[in-house]
Amino acid sequence: MKIGIVGLGLIGGSLGLDLRNQGIEVVGVSRRENTCNIALKNGVFDDASTEFAILKNTDLVFICTPIEVIFNTLQAIIPYLNNETIVTDVGSVKASIVKNCSLLWPNFVGGHPMAGKAKQGIEAAQVNLFKNAAYVLTPIKSTSSKAIKKVEKIALLLGSKIYNCSPEIHDQAVALISHLPVMISAALIDTCIKENDEKLLTLAKNLASSGFRDTSRVGGGNVELGLMMAKYNRQELLSSLSKYRQNLDDIITQIEQENWSELERILAATQKARPDFVITS
Amino acid sequence: MKIGIVGLGLIGGSLGLDLRNQGIEVVGVSRRENTCNIALKNGVFDDASTEFAILKNTDLVFICTPIEVIFNTLQAIIPYLNNETIVTDVGSVKASIVKNCSLLWPNFVGGHPMAGKAKQGIEAAQVNLFKNAAYVLTPIKSTSSKAIKKVEKIALLLGSKIYNCSPEIHDQAVALISHLPVMISAALIDTCIKENDEKLLTLAKNLASSGFRDTSRVGGGNVELGLMMAKYNRQELLSSLSKYRQNLDDIITQIEQENWSELERILAATQKARPDFVITS
Repeated sequence: MKIGIVGLGLIGGSLGLDLRNQGIEVVGVSRRENTCNIALKNGVFDDASTEFAILKNTDLVFICTPIEVIFNTLQAIIPYLNNETIVTDVGSVKASIVKNCSLLWPNFVGGHPMAGKAKQGIEAAQVNLFKNAAYVLTPIKSTSSKAIKKVEKIALLLGSKIYNCSPEIHDQAVALISHLPVMISAALIDTCIKENDEKLLTLAKNLASSGFRDTSRVGGGNVELGLMMAKYNRQELLSSLSKYRQNLDDIITQIEQENWSELERILAATQKARPDFVITS
Repeated sequence: MKIGIVGLGLIGGSLGLDLRNQGIEVVGVSRRENTCNIALKNGVFDDASTEFAILKNTDLVFICTPIEVIFNTLQAIIPYLNNETIVTDVGSVKASIVKNCSLLWPNFVGGHPMAGKAKQGIEAAQVNLFKNAAYVLTPIKSTSSKAIKKVEKIALLLGSKIYNCSPEIHDQAVALISHLPVMISAALIDTCIKENDEKLLTLAKNLASSGFRDTSRVGGGNVELGLMMAKYNRQELLSSLSKYRQNLDDIITQIEQENWSELERILAATQKARPDFVITS
């Protein structure tokens, strides 16, 4: 088996390392010569090039580019693929990508390995990045079961936990548990920044502790990632934000009306529910 | 010096351990005989009792009861104090407590050691709980500098970082960086609970990862603590929630209007500002 990887960042590079460790021949494509050289020096690929021609005779290609160029990348690599070659992507929003790419290339399987770390780029690539992480596959009616099984097999080699769902359900789920938290967390920091009372702000900075640290973490994170969520998962994110705002308003109303028994009920319910979403606290 | 501690939970017990380690005589008062016995067995106090009479001849008394009974506790212990005895509390909301308690006992100094942990109660008491933690003192005009200095001296012995401010500024600051995060975090979990689509909810639970874990932590925490913040810091919390809601609405508007440059500006500003509030990420 020969696997091609287009886009040599953290995800593409880490895929290369793990797949080569399984004895698979892996070739990489980057726009930049320098990135290819680093990847080869670090043993991430068997061969790397700035030319798509290196993808000839691959059985499977991972598109690991930024989300906005996934479709264009697929268009660009098609002349170099066999009809049998399966193409998958690693984009974190799926509906429009899967729809458009599947029309262009019937052997396309949408995927989203949910692994990452703060550091980006080929130099941050590491082995076992996907081990025990969720790997979501989002086939549609037209996706062949053969293509799905091939991508599943690779995800299993990576040690990931595989989930299958429609692109739409995927986008709704990540809006709720990944993209919504970023926006509500950013709004928290924004509220602090806008405090005009210098004395109060200085004290707040000194007193902020683990509660603020945790609640503000994702809102103070990667700007491009936050923008990408809003741009490419806009409808689902807006839907989540709208529901969130209603629930926040409900909490505000209970406090305004000093309806302590209802506030207690809400807080007891959230305390009880949280362990269903997080394994460790 | 002889110090009295009323209310033998995590804070009262940990104060006892640290002060005894400094060679100070420390006596404790709990409503429950059993709590006194555990405290004495664990070496937290030199003596402990269910009777306030044990506070006779103390130079300083810490009231470490739940916030709603601080004032009543002060009323109850007054018959056993010398006129010179300084009384301080550890309540996490200050304005009304400091106002009422200072009228009743001129030697009252409001305090808030900002230390805690998930486990509560006398059995959770530990040494050095207050080391490197913020310890806020909230004197008012009528507070004698002698009383302030005495409490400051004790806070220094505990290894805390001391901050002095008005009770009002304290309450505004903790509303912003401690109480607001709890409510916005609870609203996040509440939004997930209320999702009716079973398939979506199951997937969301499976895919929730570190971003959700951190953003939801304080909203899935101690129910009584959340209620206490809302009840006793109601006005300041409502004010913070109102400002927060405006900022969240602003983010929603940018996404609705696809105003990506403004959303990018907001996310870049929150990313830049966060390190001012948190030392480690």
